[in-house]
Amino acid sequence: MQISNEMRAMILRRRPGYSLEAPFYQSKEVFDLDMKAIFGRHWIYVGVEPDIPEPGDYFTVPMARASVVVVRDDDMSIRAFQNVCRHRGARLCDGHKGSVGNIVCPYHQWTYDLTGNLIHTEHMGESFDRSQFRLNMVHVGVVGGLIFICLADEPPTDFEDLRREMEPYIAPHCVADCKVAFEEDLIENGNWKLTMENNRECYHCKHNHPELTISLYEFGFGYQPSPENASEVQAFKDLTAQEHSRWESCGLPSVEREYLDTRITAYRTERLPLDKAGESQTMSSKVACQRLLGDLTQRNLGGLSFWTQPNSWHHFMSDHIVTFSVLPIDPEHTLLRTKWLVHKDAVEGRDYDPKELSAVWHATNKQDGGLVERTHLGAQCPGYKPGPYSPFTEELVEKFMSWYFQRLRAETGLSSATVTSLASG
Amino acid sequence: MQISNEMRAMILRRRPGYSLEAPFYQSKEVFDLDMKAIFGRHWIYVGVEPDIPEPGDYFTVPMARASVVVVRDDDMSIRAFQNVCRHRGARLCDGHKGSVGNIVCPYHQWTYDLTGNLIHTEHMGESFDRSQFRLNMVHVGVVGGLIFICLADEPPTDFEDLRREMEPYIAPHCVADCKVAFEEDLIENGNWKLTMENNRECYHCKHNHPELTISLYEFGFGYQPSPENASEVQAFKDLTAQEHSRWESCGLPSVEREYLDTRITAYRTERLPLDKAGESQTMSSKVACQRLLGDLTQRNLGGLSFWTQPNSWHHFMSDHIVTFSVLPIDPEHTLLRTKWLVHKDAVEGRDYDPKELSAVWHATNKQDGGLVERTHLGAQCPGYKPGPYSPFTEELVEKFMSWYFQRLRAETGLSSATVTSLASG
Amino acid sequence: MQISNEMRAMILRRRPGYSLEAPFYQSKEVFDLDMKAIFGRHWIYVGVEPDIPEPGDYFTVPMARASVVVVRDDDMSIRAFQNVCRHRGARLCDGHKGSVGNIVCPYHQWTYDLTGNLIHTEHMGESFDRSQFRLNMVHVGVVGGLIFICLADEPPTDFEDLRREMEPYIAPHCVADCKVAFEEDLIENGNWKLTMENNRECYHCKHNHPELTISLYEFGFGYQPSPENASEVQAFKDLTAQEHSRWESCGLPSVEREYLDTRITAYRTERLPLDKAGESQTMSSKVACQRLLGDLTQRNLGGLSFWTQPNSWHHFMSDHIVTFSVLPIDPEHTLLRTKWLVHKDAVEGRDYDPKELSAVWHATNKQDGGLVERTHLGAQCPGYKPGPYSPFTEELVEKFMSWYFQRLRAETGLSSATVTSLASG
Repeated sequence: MQISNEMRAMILRRRPGYSLEAPFYQSKEVFDLDMKAIFGRHWIYVGVEPDIPEPGDYFTVPMARASVVVVRDDDMSIRAFQNVCRHRGARLCDGHKGSVGNIVCPYHQWTYDLTGNLIHTEHMGESFDRSQFRLNMVHVGVVGGLIFICLADEPPTDFEDLRREMEPYIAPHCVADCKVAFEEDLIENGNWKLTMENNRECYHCKHNHPELTISLYEFGFGYQPSPENASEVQAFKDLTAQEHSRWESCGLPSVEREYLDTRITAYRTERLPLDKAGESQTMSSKVACQRLLGDLTQRNLGGLSFWTQPNSWHHFMSDHIVTFSVLPIDPEHTLLRTKWLVHKDAVEGRDYDPKELSAVWHATNKQDGGLVERTHLGAQCPGYKPGPYSPFTEELVEKFMSWYFQRLRAETGLSSATVTSLASG
Repeated sequence: MQISNEMRAMILRRRPGYSLEAPFYQSKEVFDLDMKAIFGRHWIYVGVEPDIPEPGDYFTVPMARASVVVVRDDDMSIRAFQNVCRHRGARLCDGHKGSVGNIVCPYHQWTYDLTGNLIHTEHMGESFDRSQFRLNMVHVGVVGGLIFICLADEPPTDFEDLRREMEPYIAPHCVADCKVAFEEDLIENGNWKLTMENNRECYHCKHNHPELTISLYEFGFGYQPSPENASEVQAFKDLTAQEHSRWESCGLPSVEREYLDTRITAYRTERLPLDKAGESQTMSSKVACQRLLGDLTQRNLGGLSFWTQPNSWHHFMSDHIVTFSVLPIDPEHTLLRTKWLVHKDAVEGRDYDPKELSAVWHATNKQDGGLVERTHLGAQCPGYKPGPYSPFTEELVEKFMSWYFQRLRAETGLSSATVTSLASG
Repeated sequence: MQISNEMRAMILRRRPGYSLEAPFYQSKEVFDLDMKAIFGRHWIYVGVEPDIPEPGDYFTVPMARASVVVVRDDDMSIRAFQNVCRHRGARLCDGHKGSVGNIVCPYHQWTYDLTGNLIHTEHMGESFDRSQFRLNMVHVGVVGGLIFICLADEPPTDFEDLRREMEPYIAPHCVADCKVAFEEDLIENGNWKLTMENNRECYHCKHNHPELTISLYEFGFGYQPSPENASEVQAFKDLTAQEHSRWESCGLPSVEREYLDTRITAYRTERLPLDKAGESQTMSSKVACQRLLGDLTQRNLGGLSFWTQPNSWHHFMSDHIVTFSVLPIDPEHTLLRTKWLVHKDAVEGRDYDPKELSAVWHATNKQDGGLVERTHLGAQCPGYKPGPYSPFTEELVEKFMSWYFQRLRAETGLSSATVTSLASG
C-alpha cells in the first residue's frame, strides 16, 4: 500500500505512551488509510446472531462509504456481501434491518439468492452469463453468537485462536438464545480512534459517569497505587480472586486473557466483580431482567468484559448483555451502535423494562460522546501537542495505539526493522 | 486542458457497454473537468422563451459555482451574461426569476443595460472607461422556443444543424405562445451523470414508475425480444407506423432522428404513441389542458420526445409540454429543473389544474431522484465495480457515455488515435 | 514558510487597486496561509476588559480550528492560553464566557491555575513533572481596555507605538469602567477578507444602510469631488475642523492618524462629527444611554473611530462604544462578534434600552453580512475577474490589501526586492 512521505514520517516518529499527532485524528489521508489498513484487513465486530434469527433476515453495516449486508441464508448460515448491485451499482438493502426472500435490486430487479448468486435478470440477452455477476462476498466469523466480518481477501487466520479461547467465556450467556431488547445508534462528533481511546480507560469515569460508577469498582480499570488506597486495593484484589474461584467452579471462565497488542486479531477479556448489589450494570446494580440468560441461576456473576481491536467491547452479565460496535463515518464522525440483549423468552413489561435495562449505558454513551467531541475539538487546535498517557490508568489506550501502529506498519511495508534503522539513522 | 495522469488513464481505459469507474461519479477532479469540458464547452439547455416574455424579464441558471443570468432585452432579443458585477464580483441578480429595467448591482449600484453595457457608476472618476467593464457575455441559441446557452468563447457550430432539423418538429407546439403553468426544482443526491443515465433508459420504469407507465407503451424504449412478446411488439410497431403516417400527414414530423454520439451538439427525437386514451402523459392519459397548444385541434398526437446531450429532455403533447434541465451542483448533488407549459390563453381552474398537469412527472421525478441517490450511495462503496448495460434497454445510456468520453478526449487532447495506440501498446 | 508555486505566483502578480483573484476568497490553501501568516503572527483584537471584570472570568476566542481562552488571573492581570489540555488535547473551557476558580479539564481533571501552571493530576505517577505541562501561553496586549492577543512566539514590537498613540484617544471613554450591555455573534457566509473589504468603504452605505446613514455624514468616508458637491463638501470640512478644535480643547484627541499599510501593527483613527442631533450612532442620532461614559459631560462628541489590521473596528461615542472583532471560521464563513458597551453604573431600563442601543449596528451588520455573502457567491463564479477599486471611496480597501500582501510577502520570504526583480524579469 502506497502512502505519502509525510504519512510515512508521522507513522515512524510516533512516540509511545503519548496521544497521537493531530492529523491522525483529522486528516482525510489518515482516515482513508485507516479504512484500508485497519477496517479493510481485520475482523470487525458488527452484530449478533439474534439480529437475524430467521432465513432472509438481514442487517446492514455502514463503514465510511462502504455498506455491507449481513444475512441469514436458507440453511441458517450467516453470510455477508457488499451491499451493491453488480449491474449499475445501486445500493441493494436499505435501512439498518429487514427481511427478504431474495435480494432484489430496486432499480432494475436484478435478483440474487441469499448465497449471493445472481438468479434473475431481464433484458440482458440470452448469452449473458449470470455466474460472472455474483454478489461480492465478505468473510463472516461467529464467536459465541457475536458476528464479525472481514473485508480482506485473506482474513487474519488467528481469528481461530480468539474463537477457541473466547467461546467458553461467552457460551454460558447463550447469545444465540437472546433477543435484542433495545438498540441505539449514536453519532459521535469525533474520529473513531478517539472513541476507542475513550473506551480503553476509566480514568475519566469517576467525574463523568455517575450512572456507570454505581456498579463499577474504582480499582478494576487501573489506578496509581498509594498508601491511601492500599487497603481498598487489597480488598478489591481479594474479592476478585474469591469471585473468580466461585465463578470458575460454576463453569464460568473468569481470569484475564490479554492479547491487545500481541496478535493481529487482538483482544482482552476478564470477568470482574460488580459493586453494591453486584448483579448487573444497572442503576441499582441489580438485574434488569428477571429471566436470566441461558441456564444461569445465579444473579451475582459480575460482568464478563470482552474488548477487541479495532472496534468493539461487550459486557455479559447474568441477566443481560450490552455490546458495542464502533463504525467510522468520516474523519470527524463515528457511529457507535449499542445493543442490549436479554433471553428471548423474557417478556417486555413483565421481566424487563427496556428503559431501565438501557439506562446506564444510554447515559454513559452520551457522556462519552461529549468527551470524544471535546477531545476532537481540542486536538484540532494548532496549540495541541501529543500528551502523556497515565502509566496506571491508560495502559490499554497505549496498547490500542501500539496495535494500531503495528498494523499500519505491517500494511504499509514499514517493518519494525525499517523503523529501527530509520530511528537510529 | 491539463489533467492528472490518473484521470488520463481512467479516461483511456473506459470499457464500452459498462457503467463508469467510481471516481467519475464522485471525485472533485472529474467534476471540475465535467464543468470545464462538458458544461463549459457545449450547448446547455436552460429554459424556455415563456420564462421571460417581457423586456427586462430574467431568469438565473446555477451551474456548480457559476451563475448565468438570461434576460430579454428591450429589442425582445434573448441575452445571457455571467451573473457577476465587474466591480468587486457581487452576484447581480437573485432568485430564479425576476424583472428589471437595468441590471443594477445591489452593492455599489454599478448599472448595466440589458445588452450588458456598463452605463452608470459613481465615484470611479472622470477617466474611468466604462466600456472596459461590460458584463461577460454568454452565447444564446433558441430552438423553437427552447433556450440554450454556451459558455465557450467559440460554441460548437453544429447547433445550426440541430436547429434546422428540430424546429419543424417543435413548431406545431408553439412554445413561444405558451406560459409556464408549473415548475419545480428538485435536488437529487447524486452525480449529474447518474441523473442522465437514469433518464436514458426505461428498463427501470415498470417497477418504479406506476404513474408514468399508465401512458407509456412498454416497447417504446427497448426490450429483449422473445417468443412471448413477439406479437405485442409487432402490434406496437404497426401502431407506431400507422400513427407516424397519420401525424406526418397533419404536418407533424414524427420519425426518429438520432445523433446521440455522432455529433458534438448531440440529440435524438421521435414522436411515439401513448397508451390508453393516448392523449397525454397524465394519470388518465387524457389531456390535462382543454386549450390545446398552438393551432392543434386533435388531442391524440402522442408524445414528441426530444433528448439532448449533455443535459435535457422534453416531451411535447397536444395539450402541454414538459421540459427538463439538469444542472450540476457539486459532485454529489444535481438540480433537476422541470417546467410544465400550456397555451398562454389557457385559464387555470377552468382549462387546467396545475396539480393534475404535473402529477405524473412530479411523481416520476421523485422516484428517479431516489434511484439516483441509491446508485450514488452504492457506487461509493469500495465493493462497486462497473457493470454491464443491457444491450436492449440501455443502448441510449451507452450512447450518452460514448458521447461523454468522446468529448472528454477531444477537450483533453486524447485523440482516438492516442486511444488506439495506447490500448494496443 | 513554504507555499506552492501557484500561490507564490498569485501573490506576486497581485494588481494594486483591484479586488483579488478568486482563490484568495475561497481556497483552503490561501485560508491556511491567512491563518498562519496573518492571524498567527499579528495582534488580533478579541474583546474588552469588561468581558472579564473579576478573577477567574474568561472568554474564549474561536479562530478557524483554534480556540484561545482569555482569563483574568487572581492578580487582575489578563492572560491568554491555547484552550487545550496538555494531557490528551481536550478542549478546556466551553462556551463564549464563563468563570472558574482554576481551569479544570472536564475529561480527567487535570487542573491548571489561572497563570497556566499544571497544579494537579491524578494517576500520573510520582515522577511525573507537571512543570513540563503548563498551558501554552498566548501573548496579550491591552490598549485602553481593548484586548489584543498574538499567537506568535515573538509578537510585533510596534504594538507599543499603537498603544502609546491610541490610549489618549480612547482614555476619555473609560472602557475599563464600562459593562457589556449587549453582544451579538453573526456568522457571515463569506471569506473574512470580504468582511474586511466591506468594512473599509462606505461607497455601499447610501443604498444599503438606511439606519447607519441617519447619523453618518456622506462625506466622511470618501467621495468623488464634483462641482455639484463642492459646497457641501466644504461645509463638512469646515464643520470637522471646528469640531476637532472644540473636542481637542476638551481633552479629546480627534485628528486623523493613519498607518494602515505603513506599519506591521497597522491602524487608523479619527473623531468625526455626526449628523442630525450629532450625539451618537443611533436611530435618532441622540444618545442611547443617559449615563455618559467616564467623566464625559457633553453629549455631542461625535464618533471616534478606530480601525485595526487585520480584524477590528470600533466606534466610541459620548454614551456608548460599539466594538467589532472579525474571526475567520473557514474559507467561506466568518464570525463577526459585536459588543455594545455603556457605563457600568448605567441601569438597563432606566438609562438605556439594549434594543435601542444596538438597533443601528444590529441592522447594519445584517445588511453587511448579506453583501459579503453576495460577493462571496459572485467571486466563485468562473466569470469573476478582479475589478477596480474606486480611487475616491475605496482607498482604505486598497490599504487593507496593500498591508495584507506586504505581510504575506514578509512571512513567505517574498521580499519587495523579489517582487521587483520578478516583475521586471
